[in-house]
Amino acid sequence: MKNKRGFASDNNAGVHPDILNAIIGANKGHTIAYGDDEYTRRAVKIIKNLLGDDIDVYFVFIGTAANVLGLTAVTRSYNSIICAESSHMHQDECGAPENYSGCKLLSVPTENGKLYLDGIKHHMYGIDFEHHSQPKVLSVTQATEMGTVYSKEEMDEIAGFAHDNGMIVHMDGARIANAAITMNSGLREITRDVGVDVLSFGGTKNGMMYGEAIVFFRKDLAPDFKYIRKQGMQLASKMRFIAAQFEAYLSNDLWMKNASHANEMAQLLAAEVENIPEVKITQNVEANGVFAIIPKESIPVLQEKFFFYVWNEETSEVRWMTSYDTTPEDIARFVQLLKKTLRQKKDT
Amino acid sequence: MKNKRGFASDNNAGVHPDILNAIIGANKGHTIAYGDDEYTRRAVKIIKNLLGDDIDVYFVFIGTAANVLGLTAVTRSYNSIICAESSHMHQDECGAPENYSGCKLLSVPTENGKLYLDGIKHHMYGIDFEHHSQPKVLSVTQATEMGTVYSKEEMDEIAGFAHDNGMIVHMDGARIANAAITMNSGLREITRDVGVDVLSFGGTKNGMMYGEAIVFFRKDLAPDFKYIRKQGMQLASKMRFIAAQFEAYLSNDLWMKNASHANEMAQLLAAEVENIPEVKITQNVEANGVFAIIPKESIPVLQEKFFFYVWNEETSEVRWMTSYDTTPEDIARFVQLLKKTLRQKKDT
Amino acid sequence: MKNKRGFASDNNAGVHPDILNAIIGANKGHTIAYGDDEYTRRAVKIIKNLLGDDIDVYFVFIGTAANVLGLTAVTRSYNSIICAESSHMHQDECGAPENYSGCKLLSVPTENGKLYLDGIKHHMYGIDFEHHSQPKVLSVTQATEMGTVYSKEEMDEIAGFAHDNGMIVHMDGARIANAAITMNSGLREITRDVGVDVLSFGGTKNGMMYGEAIVFFRKDLAPDFKYIRKQGMQLASKMRFIAAQFEAYLSNDLWMKNASHANEMAQLLAAEVENIPEVKITQNVEANGVFAIIPKESIPVLQEKFFFYVWNEETSEVRWMTSYDTTPEDIARFVQLLKKTLRQKKDT
Amino acid sequence: MKNKRGFASDNNAGVHPDILNAIIGANKGHTIAYGDDEYTRRAVKIIKNLLGDDIDVYFVFIGTAANVLGLTAVTRSYNSIICAESSHMHQDECGAPENYSGCKLLSVPTENGKLYLDGIKHHMYGIDFEHHSQPKVLSVTQATEMGTVYSKEEMDEIAGFAHDNGMIVHMDGARIANAAITMNSGLREITRDVGVDVLSFGGTKNGMMYGEAIVFFRKDLAPDFKYIRKQGMQLASKMRFIAAQFEAYLSNDLWMKNASHANEMAQLLAAEVENIPEVKITQNVEANGVFAIIPKESIPVLQEKFFFYVWNEETSEVRWMTSYDTTPEDIARFVQLLKKTLRQKKDT
Repeated sequence: MKNKRGFASDNNAGVHPDILNAIIGANKGHTIAYGDDEYTRRAVKIIKNLLGDDIDVYFVFIGTAANVLGLTAVTRSYNSIICAESSHMHQDECGAPENYSGCKLLSVPTENGKLYLDGIKHHMYGIDFEHHSQPKVLSVTQATEMGTVYSKEEMDEIAGFAHDNGMIVHMDGARIANAAITMNSGLREITRDVGVDVLSFGGTKNGMMYGEAIVFFRKDLAPDFKYIRKQGMQLASKMRFIAAQFEAYLSNDLWMKNASHANEMAQLLAAEVENIPEVKITQNVEANGVFAIIPKESIPVLQEKFFFYVWNEETSEVRWMTSYDTTPEDIARFVQLLKKTLRQKKDT
Repeated sequence: MKNKRGFASDNNAGVHPDILNAIIGANKGHTIAYGDDEYTRRAVKIIKNLLGDDIDVYFVFIGTAANVLGLTAVTRSYNSIICAESSHMHQDECGAPENYSGCKLLSVPTENGKLYLDGIKHHMYGIDFEHHSQPKVLSVTQATEMGTVYSKEEMDEIAGFAHDNGMIVHMDGARIANAAITMNSGLREITRDVGVDVLSFGGTKNGMMYGEAIVFFRKDLAPDFKYIRKQGMQLASKMRFIAAQFEAYLSNDLWMKNASHANEMAQLLAAEVENIPEVKITQNVEANGVFAIIPKESIPVLQEKFFFYVWNEETSEVRWMTSYDTTPEDIARFVQLLKKTLRQKKDT
Repeated sequence: MKNKRGFASDNNAGVHPDILNAIIGANKGHTIAYGDDEYTRRAVKIIKNLLGDDIDVYFVFIGTAANVLGLTAVTRSYNSIICAESSHMHQDECGAPENYSGCKLLSVPTENGKLYLDGIKHHMYGIDFEHHSQPKVLSVTQATEMGTVYSKEEMDEIAGFAHDNGMIVHMDGARIANAAITMNSGLREITRDVGVDVLSFGGTKNGMMYGEAIVFFRKDLAPDFKYIRKQGMQLASKMRFIAAQFEAYLSNDLWMKNASHANEMAQLLAAEVENIPEVKITQNVEANGVFAIIPKESIPVLQEKFFFYVWNEETSEVRWMTSYDTTPEDIARFVQLLKKTLRQKKDT
Repeated sequence: MKNKRGFASDNNAGVHPDILNAIIGANKGHTIAYGDDEYTRRAVKIIKNLLGDDIDVYFVFIGTAANVLGLTAVTRSYNSIICAESSHMHQDECGAPENYSGCKLLSVPTENGKLYLDGIKHHMYGIDFEHHSQPKVLSVTQATEMGTVYSKEEMDEIAGFAHDNGMIVHMDGARIANAAITMNSGLREITRDVGVDVLSFGGTKNGMMYGEAIVFFRKDLAPDFKYIRKQGMQLASKMRFIAAQFEAYLSNDLWMKNASHANEMAQLLAAEVENIPEVKITQNVEANGVFAIIPKESIPVLQEKFFFYVWNEETSEVRWMTSYDTTPEDIARFVQLLKKTLRQKKDT
């Protein structure tokens, strides 16, 4: 029961064996705490190899912290941050961005989790007017919280707009690996090359135990970030265990293999359910999530056997996330149960 | 080189094998994220068995967060927090307590890391006077940052004073295990039984990889703490891996064995150096730290081979911390080098 | 030039002579600072006579502070505050509510400046879910920033909803006097009697020099507010001069006379322009503001002679505020110029 | 009774007639709100004439806000601010500096209200060490809270030290006028010319009704301060009434006359009591305050007729402040009562 499988979240999965082995391997003797160690230097170097030498990289514990501290670093409290209404930072961080940075979040309604120029421009007024929070950051999530992926052209357009207006582009990359697979691109091409200035580089949802990286693509953005991280309660003492995870994650294409598998499983799940008449898929399946409207009564029956969340109570829309360890059998069993449940419902 | 040993900090040590095994054991299948899982329930139950059923327990990542969020939970921003000048929260958290809670820290100079009534009373004025921050929390560290331990009588006295004045007693228990060993007492006897209301219950310095617990000994103190933790960027997604560590740590007397060993190593180190004329031990060795003044010139020579920190540049006082994995050989080698270094110095 | 008149804001007006005389009258000898004085006691008593004895009243300097500190008093930082998108606290306080209280502001799009249940309910989810800011305050502005007024029935409905959901009703009453006149009601009937818990009671826009009151209609809401005010940088040393203004403002029906006049002038202005074909009044004129769309080219011509603000650049909507000292001549001159300008435009 | 005179605080005094007249004079017609007006421009110009053209000047409501926002402007939350233990910002602002700026205040014990190098240096460690708040501001009060005055040499020494260490010098000038009189110097000579970077320029304690100025002596220090002031809830709508006060205050040497008189009255009071055997003056009388230890039993008897505060309950030290409107008769009556009270005490 405890180990019931499901599609609730990619962080219900455990740790990939290669990453766990890296942790075990790092557990040797004494190492200077707080990041002044070889493991950390190696992990940073690997990230620089991927994203460019002229960047700053800092490890923190979780994605919320990566977002919040990254945003705090590049703002003053009188700034505003424009984001999608569906974004994690707006919906699921319990107000941490406002509370910690002091900034106002300006949310944009969105059909598919993405920001577009129209919605952004709605918030672009009151510039230089002291009564009004000054827009400073445009924050996107890649892949989005709704399982979609910004194309490079979409990113170019909004990042260009941001820069033209003196703003900074932040990317919540909790699922950046899944997006890279979808786009068939390297991490650099879909971040700094399309205008991202600050990246929350996630790993936990793709097979790590804990640990995220904050990447500043310009070294002048946050030269004082080490203080912000420490004061922000995100400086790990035994840093080597985060670093070792990143090293394993970014070696041997593990990040790609994991993300690729999760994406495939989402495609498989979508393919299996899209022809069921009672199931209406609501978003393009571009990463590792499937969003669908299903009959309300079937939900609790399914949840008895599989974890997953209701995304929208009113419309009976659910979210099914796949992960690096989802198996075709998981999907087969789930689809079988889904069909059975819908059939029984029809019969009654 | 990477694995140079030393006495810099008890968190330069790695993870105890039993705890690492517990992590490995927890890596099975899917588990609901964010703490709604069996591992977490079991770990909380073990802590309640130790400290009492009528308490609230929350896991966070690090000690700074345990301190800061615990303090935030029981204060409003117009309160002040009285602590020792040498305390971690005053010296080594980069101002996180003030920044996050909004409170003023009132520090008390201390010879041995402990607070006494005299120093506390110095800050007890301006009560009910709106111009003045209102004292609300008395924070002690057990064992202290200077390797000393409050006796039960000392705790009783200051906790009694705090409660008589409507204040809350917070204990930074980053090294609570070491204190328990020294006092030959259970964790309950040296915390809630001597008046502690909020405990930062540390494990990382005594063999864990990461993770601390915040314990509220009265359930009315922070009924809303789950929001404070989440907004405070300290809610782990894969919580089971913190919980599993605590379970192992608190099983089979592991916490006691580790702390006991570290304390013994400190006694051994002290015994080995106390008769060296150039070494002056400056604090009672009551936990796992030895503070000593040594000739300034010898410090860099020693640091080439062993990690440790200078505590006070002016007086040439150093801090040597032992840990659960310090060996008698580590000490023998270090003392040998120390003697050799001092001899060479004399010869020159 | 310096004293060019206009319709920019009701706080472009000066101080009403009766209020200025009260200030002059209070300037006698020594008085204990910070509010422990007879002037303050008298002013508080007058407010209690109006609004009920069982309330708490605090003076601050400005409306932004009244809003922000009132909200801070009744929230914790993990709460959210629901308000209209057009509200002053969302648009014109430079993010002070988020920055100071730490809370998230959830804005509701609105046609007429008012909140309705539909929009409010859109934000009522994630209750008891620690990832989500918990809705705690419903904030309305009376009269609204768009010159409209909530009816008692409208207030009853949304305040009832708020209370049913354990929320607190905050009213930004920067123009509460204008609303009372419109509703032909006493201040108590349109605040506590319709469910308001916390009121920002404004005076500056209706003839005072500076000073607002924060009223808590339940004494348990903020028993510690004196500290919040002081720490919030809003405790006046020479408090008597705020108190004396409130005393004059609330005596001899001055607040009503001033608001009544301002409202009448808005009606007069609306009547004068509503039949001009190029002018489209966009909001019901229910308080002391007229909102209208006028030809874009006419705006700078008019602004040369009269102060007023463009409300919406895109639609060419302007805002004309009247005040206690607006004269029929001001309006006649303005309408004359408006007509002339539009005529010239047509001729070209 | 209400107008009982005394020596409690220089802000128990009312408003100087010339300043009140300036307020009355400014109450003419409409003026653009929030500082974009002729009164404000004139007042700023006068201050620039006094202190230099290349500065930035902003008006706020009160001294606490001037201190807090000035400090916030030049720091990040991981900084620390070094100040005297007796300073207003440490004792009497209810923790506003920590709460608003996020910074740590490091207080230095002081005999006479002044900072000296020794005490400052005690806090200068942990530089570049991310665990430790980074010292960024040295804050002095001139004249100090204990009625003493820094000499130019004293200021030169500590400001030089601050600048050599990359720090900023903040001066709380709530009583800067009194210091200027004592030093027989202009305001510029005792501020920017001795190294002050940011000045809280007070007026309320020397005859104004409300209003303080924040002066940045380098225009690069806070180019964005207009947002900080607005978000800090300190932007006055009817700004002209603060500006008009400053204009009057700084014209016709009013500020000097007022301060000069207050200082003389302190000298007179000191001269009258210094030979009373039961009175022990504890501080040099260098500005407008007299600190003295008097028999504890006499205090309530005196307080029945005159306002004043006990500075130190333990030592029975009291503080007597004089102000621009203190009269020789006030002092004569007070000294007479003091002598009578002490005599009666002796007789009993």
